[in-house]
Amino acid sequence: MADMAQPKDKEEQSLKSIVAVSKRRGFVFPGSEIYGGLSNTFDYGPNGVEVLNNLKRLWWEYFVHRRDDILGLDSSILLHPRVWEASGHVSNFNDPLMDCKKCKARVRVDKFLEDKEGEGAATGKSLEELTARIIEKAYACPTCGSTGTFTEARQFNLMFKTAHGASEEGSTDIYLRPETAQGIFINFKNVNQISRKKVPFGIAQIGKSFRNEIMARQFIFRTREFEQMEMEFFCEPGTQKEWFTYWVEYCMNWLVNVVGIKRENLRVREHEKEELSFYSDATSDIEYKYPFGWGELWGVASRTDYDLTQHEKFSSEDLKYHDLEEKKKYLPYVVEPALGLNRLFLAVLCDGYEEEKLEKDEVRTVLRFGKRVSPMKVAIFPLMKKDGLDDKAKEIYKDLLPHWYVDYDEGGAIGKRYRRHDEIGTPYCITVDYDSLQDGTVTIRERDSMKQERIAISSIKSYLFERLV
Amino acid sequence: MADMAQPKDKEEQSLKSIVAVSKRRGFVFPGSEIYGGLSNTFDYGPNGVEVLNNLKRLWWEYFVHRRDDILGLDSSILLHPRVWEASGHVSNFNDPLMDCKKCKARVRVDKFLEDKEGEGAATGKSLEELTARIIEKAYACPTCGSTGTFTEARQFNLMFKTAHGASEEGSTDIYLRPETAQGIFINFKNVNQISRKKVPFGIAQIGKSFRNEIMARQFIFRTREFEQMEMEFFCEPGTQKEWFTYWVEYCMNWLVNVVGIKRENLRVREHEKEELSFYSDATSDIEYKYPFGWGELWGVASRTDYDLTQHEKFSSEDLKYHDLEEKKKYLPYVVEPALGLNRLFLAVLCDGYEEEKLEKDEVRTVLRFGKRVSPMKVAIFPLMKKDGLDDKAKEIYKDLLPHWYVDYDEGGAIGKRYRRHDEIGTPYCITVDYDSLQDGTVTIRERDSMKQERIAISSIKSYLFERLV
Repeated sequence: MADMAQPKDKEEQSLKSIVAVSKRRGFVFPGSEIYGGLSNTFDYGPNGVEVLNNLKRLWWEYFVHRRDDILGLDSSILLHPRVWEASGHVSNFNDPLMDCKKCKARVRVDKFLEDKEGEGAATGKSLEELTARIIEKAYACPTCGSTGTFTEARQFNLMFKTAHGASEEGSTDIYLRPETAQGIFINFKNVNQISRKKVPFGIAQIGKSFRNEIMARQFIFRTREFEQMEMEFFCEPGTQKEWFTYWVEYCMNWLVNVVGIKRENLRVREHEKEELSFYSDATSDIEYKYPFGWGELWGVASRTDYDLTQHEKFSSEDLKYHDLEEKKKYLPYVVEPALGLNRLFLAVLCDGYEEEKLEKDEVRTVLRFGKRVSPMKVAIFPLMKKDGLDDKAKEIYKDLLPHWYVDYDEGGAIGKRYRRHDEIGTPYCITVDYDSLQDGTVTIRERDSMKQERIAISSIKSYLFERLV
Repeated sequence: MADMAQPKDKEEQSLKSIVAVSKRRGFVFPGSEIYGGLSNTFDYGPNGVEVLNNLKRLWWEYFVHRRDDILGLDSSILLHPRVWEASGHVSNFNDPLMDCKKCKARVRVDKFLEDKEGEGAATGKSLEELTARIIEKAYACPTCGSTGTFTEARQFNLMFKTAHGASEEGSTDIYLRPETAQGIFINFKNVNQISRKKVPFGIAQIGKSFRNEIMARQFIFRTREFEQMEMEFFCEPGTQKEWFTYWVEYCMNWLVNVVGIKRENLRVREHEKEELSFYSDATSDIEYKYPFGWGELWGVASRTDYDLTQHEKFSSEDLKYHDLEEKKKYLPYVVEPALGLNRLFLAVLCDGYEEEKLEKDEVRTVLRFGKRVSPMKVAIFPLMKKDGLDDKAKEIYKDLLPHWYVDYDEGGAIGKRYRRHDEIGTPYCITVDYDSLQDGTVTIRERDSMKQERIAISSIKSYLFERLV
């Protein structure tokens, strides 16, 4: 994220349009909106939840079901507090913050300095150095404009804390997990035992994580509550580089060929040595070109045996893998592709969003989702809400309902209904008109080309089956 | 839950066997196990997560996709704190607790009294009356056995609290949602606007909820972190009784005909007038006959316009529905079928579990899941791990992989592999033997009847497609 470009006017405009269509078409609503909103939370509407479900299903298919070397898991959000001591989150999962003594606004110091002085301005600086630099330059508080009102910078842990009450003795502090990965590591032994899988193999999980981020911006790109799709791939020490390369490519392939994101809007950014976590021997981010600049979409990290070593130490359990054929015991190395579902959704929205110029200066907004991603697959319209056209259309609708998520829409002019479904990203619209009652055909219109074809009602299903796989 | 029977030895034994097979076959692991466990949390293993996903998908299909009057939603776990004031959770979502002054154990007073004196013993009693009764009878602390050491009973809120930090001014207290329902109510207006659905219509949601329960027992029946599948059906005042009856029947039908739970293990229990929440004009629980007694599986509640009225009051937003045809405005009434995914999973496990007596005093453990629920659909075995049998079996495996979640298993004697998959609930096992290499046929074995058939390799897919729908 260090290289995220500065927002530019045009790009901000484009993000604003995406936020607007997301709300208008029931993809993403501001969280707790009727109560004035709860900062940095979002609710996913009827079309949004369908896209999320499609993305999850496609990921699970390609990362679990279609592979013989990966198994699924669904571990708790609430884990034993020692897990986060072992993983290093209790001591190291911090952001450097300072407060404005005047208006009480809180500022994330490193990002603030980078906003002022450009990328990398905060890299390698201690808390004291960050504070000194900001005081020296007399940078003003971004909220109230005062200068000289900042406190010293200090570390602020990003984990949400709560209490798990069971006895009067003081309930135990527990954390909402900040990542799903640790739930996988602590189950490595269990999964290995029950599945009898041989290394190399992976464990995949989809679930919510929580981080008390101060920097809340860019719509659903970074939110306090978010969903992750993580996979930990356990391999023999020495083979991790090979697997690392393999997984970067596999992930990229999934994004382009399964989800349908444009290749030119993706890039792989290898972390420099200084940027690597101390336990990682290689990390690459697959980045997407968001309207606000390149942003991390998928982090692929070679984590060595750091996590298993830590959990072995803190839990006193033997977590070593026994290779019975080669007769050896070792802690596997781990390669982790970690994807954020919400930022993937944002990438899909940005990638598909187009304001297309038509004839006569008309503009249509269209979301060119991949067909497997679009929330609804087909919409059925009666040309008029009378003369039996609506009955015929409903009949077709009911016939398609068991196979796809379908809409029936009888409101307003046909042109308006097309536009509405362009904005939802529905790949096909079917119109029932007076000819339909005579010759048993309908018009089917494709979203991207806007081409219309006349096909027999009896062939609708096979037409769609061919095109919607 | 008031009528949950006392655990009996045989029934406890049966639950123990289910817990054991759940762990052994990768359905449910104790949470944070390598750290000695975190009370009342569970992690779902490779087969467990598949069952959960199947149940969620089947519910979504029947409650969203196949209906033209229900839409999906995915609202935040973190909502504005006013939501829980409006809903009544801040003031009323309490359990009466007392502590043992000696050993510090915490006891849920009403349940404790009912354990001692039978169902209904705590009904209608105030905190003071509960305390008085327990002191009068000198009941001993269930943990340390002391008498006369209990504190007064007091109310304890069940919501998990955390802090949402954004400014130095003291971060705001927020709650982990104790139910998904309120996220639906606060989005009623948004969903109504974007979808232009006419009342009656419903909004459905699947997601995690959290309750800081003291009574943690009965495996995954009641856990602090759990997943709900809730639907709020908005209808015109006066029609709610009709819809209430409709939804009780629809839910029951789904359990029996889609999930495949035995009808005789389900019952509908209508709430007596005294038992109803003050805002509800009818509530029924669909209960399942668990090994520990009848327990609530699915609560169907007619909630009147209570929730929308409260949110209108607390948010000052007009939440009324405008019926444009009839030219009237009103707050819809709500019927809510609320299902707990984890206790549904437990019902499915209990319902399918059988220790079947075979010839020669042999016993096999089998999980007779519905075919749509079972985690894996097919397992492929080579008779021996040599002579090309394994290659042939792998070839079949890879051919089936794109269609179903399939296992390849080459370890141990064939009989043992059958037993393993009986315990996973896999409906079909395919064995590749020496004849397969000669005549291109395999043995396919059905889980429940254990009948084996010889079929051509080329017809495996159509055989399965017919039977696995």
